[in-house]
Amino acid sequence: MLRNDQIDKWDRDHFLHPSTHLAQHARGESPNRIVRTASGVFIEDRDGNRLLDAFAGLYCVNIGYGRQEVAEAIAEQARELAYYHAYAGHGTEASVTLAQMVLERAPKGMSKVYFGLGGSDANETNIKLVWYYNNILGRPEKKKIISRWRGYHGSGLVTGSLTGLELFHKKFDLPLDGILHTTSPYFYRRADPSQDEAAFVAQCVADLEELIDREGADTIAAFIGEPLMGTGGIVPPPKGYWPAIQAVLDRHDILLIADEVVTGFGRLGTMFGSDHYGIRPDIITIAKGLTSAYAPLSGSIVGEKVWKGLEKGTDENGVLGHGWTYSAHPIGAAAGVANLQLLDKLNLVENAGTVGAYLNQSMREALGDHPNVGEIRGDGMLCAVELVADSDTRRFFDASDKIGIQVSAAMLADHKVIARAMPQGDIIGFAPPFCLTRAEADSVVAATAAAVRKVLG
Amino acid sequence: MLRNDQIDKWDRDHFLHPSTHLAQHARGESPNRIVRTASGVFIEDRDGNRLLDAFAGLYCVNIGYGRQEVAEAIAEQARELAYYHAYAGHGTEASVTLAQMVLERAPKGMSKVYFGLGGSDANETNIKLVWYYNNILGRPEKKKIISRWRGYHGSGLVTGSLTGLELFHKKFDLPLDGILHTTSPYFYRRADPSQDEAAFVAQCVADLEELIDREGADTIAAFIGEPLMGTGGIVPPPKGYWPAIQAVLDRHDILLIADEVVTGFGRLGTMFGSDHYGIRPDIITIAKGLTSAYAPLSGSIVGEKVWKGLEKGTDENGVLGHGWTYSAHPIGAAAGVANLQLLDKLNLVENAGTVGAYLNQSMREALGDHPNVGEIRGDGMLCAVELVADSDTRRFFDASDKIGIQVSAAMLADHKVIARAMPQGDIIGFAPPFCLTRAEADSVVAATAAAVRKVLG
Ligand SMILES: Cc1ncc(COP(=O)(O)O)c(C=O)c1O
Ligand SMILES: Cc1ncc(COP(=O)(O)O)c(C=O)c1O
Repeated sequence: MLRNDQIDKWDRDHFLHPSTHLAQHARGESPNRIVRTASGVFIEDRDGNRLLDAFAGLYCVNIGYGRQEVAEAIAEQARELAYYHAYAGHGTEASVTLAQMVLERAPKGMSKVYFGLGGSDANETNIKLVWYYNNILGRPEKKKIISRWRGYHGSGLVTGSLTGLELFHKKFDLPLDGILHTTSPYFYRRADPSQDEAAFVAQCVADLEELIDREGADTIAAFIGEPLMGTGGIVPPPKGYWPAIQAVLDRHDILLIADEVVTGFGRLGTMFGSDHYGIRPDIITIAKGLTSAYAPLSGSIVGEKVWKGLEKGTDENGVLGHGWTYSAHPIGAAAGVANLQLLDKLNLVENAGTVGAYLNQSMREALGDHPNVGEIRGDGMLCAVELVADSDTRRFFDASDKIGIQVSAAMLADHKVIARAMPQGDIIGFAPPFCLTRAEADSVVAATAAAVRKVLG
Repeated sequence: MLRNDQIDKWDRDHFLHPSTHLAQHARGESPNRIVRTASGVFIEDRDGNRLLDAFAGLYCVNIGYGRQEVAEAIAEQARELAYYHAYAGHGTEASVTLAQMVLERAPKGMSKVYFGLGGSDANETNIKLVWYYNNILGRPEKKKIISRWRGYHGSGLVTGSLTGLELFHKKFDLPLDGILHTTSPYFYRRADPSQDEAAFVAQCVADLEELIDREGADTIAAFIGEPLMGTGGIVPPPKGYWPAIQAVLDRHDILLIADEVVTGFGRLGTMFGSDHYGIRPDIITIAKGLTSAYAPLSGSIVGEKVWKGLEKGTDENGVLGHGWTYSAHPIGAAAGVANLQLLDKLNLVENAGTVGAYLNQSMREALGDHPNVGEIRGDGMLCAVELVADSDTRRFFDASDKIGIQVSAAMLADHKVIARAMPQGDIIGFAPPFCLTRAEADSVVAATAAAVRKVLG
């Protein structure tokens, strides 16, 4: 696997990659890949491999690769004004326009948007705003945040604590104090298999109520959740889950943060997951789909209620002491404006809905009856195939067998299709660009079916 | 001040700016500024104001504005491949090349670089790596981080805790537990004015020793500091400070994180502040100067010792569970490569040293004797003028008089020069682009002197 050229050597010698086996990478024992160009749903590496990316990067290149309209908007902004800060009321036409465009698309009741860089730092901002808000409201004890097992909200110290997945906690001393986790709304993996969906939702609600009672509602500031759980396994909420959870939160005056980093701007075939599932959030986290990853940009959309608190806070205390040097970076803002325009112009949200439904349906037809397929689930342009040792008894594979990784590796090697082995469980995840065609969806399904049969018979 | 056009309205209605008085901004009571273009050391807003930016954005546009070489590199990357992730050993030619370029320039003993987005998230990564490292080394109790009062290390929950400035703590419940602060190496503001520089350094060392003794060295993982304290007041270290501090840390097996977000890549007239002041860091934080802010990119440069721990860690535990979607973003990497090339080609680091010295010297000549000027200090292309009620007795102004803000406002209004009123104390900060000419330095000094005299006589 070792290559002797310069790029390979530099990569092994000096580049500390995210989410990588560092030692194997440095020793040249694991493959690296230098990506050169990309177009539509295909990426190409420098060895000439052309791969169908059925995960859109990290479910973020929503409009597809190689869109010259966005590249041109970035280029134009870079030539005119690559950077100026947004502190103390500064902005650019791009950042102000994008703020307006975001609010035009956001669910009802939203007021302002703060721009950050990635999803993690946006959730960091959210917690800071929530704490500040409760301090201004004179309830300094109301600060804990409830998240869910298998949620994904980032990889920082606090945001990695919100995340409810072992890989992101182990050896990092996470979760930190003050971050609580409640039951994962993962119907297929419910503890009591005799429960039907309604009983399971009642269980989620009861578990949440119990947690709130145990901790005291007056110590709990907010609940954070992805409308559809992504990295935890691509798990749509069980029917009735969100209205039931929302009712509990309302009763205890607990704010709801909808983390729409994956679902925001169209992935479910609708603009926001909150509208899709009937959630009324107080704050919404956005990132990935905001720019389709063409440039880093994230955001915290703040609802009227929280905004009023922030206004009061700065009237009482002056300037809000929060900001990143690159908040509302002009290159990101220009990419965001062009991206949202293209999303509309090419009807990509609608396509995400229709072709996504086709992908899910085709996957079910191809693999629904396979004895090692426990569940095929999804919504919009998201789909997951959960592999189990025995679907009749819902017996899971040993993690050490790495079945999910084997299947995704076979898809890549034999069919040049990228799917993601999700980090916890043997779950093959699909989140293609919204421009996926039915023919491309067919290739993805065929590759999956073949790889599952190759690995599992 | 209210304007009735669309951009102004959108800005007031929907854009939550960093470090801003939110309520005044929303009500249209404070000025906003829509920046349109920029070139060299000048920015231009949409009302046609042309301003000399003597703070280089937020001391980050080191190569100056409007560099078409960097714009072109960004454009080219955007056209070819705006995004692919860097997880699991993926990269681009730009990101790998930049890793190599960073290591070629870094102080001795550095091994790898992880790329993030901004300085805050890079410091977040640093703490995660330090904790992981100590877990791998079997010392799970060694986790606290020592920072310094008046240090600035970011605006997140943990990184804002590292920061030692009131504005970033107040109403946010920061600092969090486990982050300790020691004496600020701020000679001019020393508690005991009878101390000379050597006695003050001995005091800083004694205070640090005492803190370590009180907490127990086996509970302390790392010490973080900016080689030259930036946002806390642009304060060069007192003579002998760093070697003395380093000796304490070495004795207690405490890692040293040099936060070079401001000083990295030339601001002191040398490539790194660590080399400049004789620091041997274990980890170096980089951001701003890495891309001159043309696109968001930060980094954590990891030294050999910590790297060995990370290697061992992944050999024992598999994949490192850390990453941002936009880690090593191709647009940022392309900007970084072009930026570092330009820095060399135009000899900008040398210019930062020589013109920076000229700026500091001229400022001293113009204002050194003013009765309200307590100290003029700086190094490389960094300079600060500290204003006091009485320089003989070192009596400070009341914060509520906002003298620093008045002076910087007068510089802007009367002379179209941007300097920064630093957030704590009446300190006018200067950190111009490295391409500043002597004539431009003269304008900055003249504007400062005139504004000081206007406000203070
Ligand atoms: C729901 C959700 N929130 C937050 C994040 C963190 O975003 P980032 O990786 O940009 O920090 C992610 C990333 O996958 C995510 O899926
Ligand atoms: C020394 C230092 N570290 C970290 C940061 C935080 O960087 P960012 O604003 O990009 O998060 C800054 C920002 O000014 C800084 O000056």
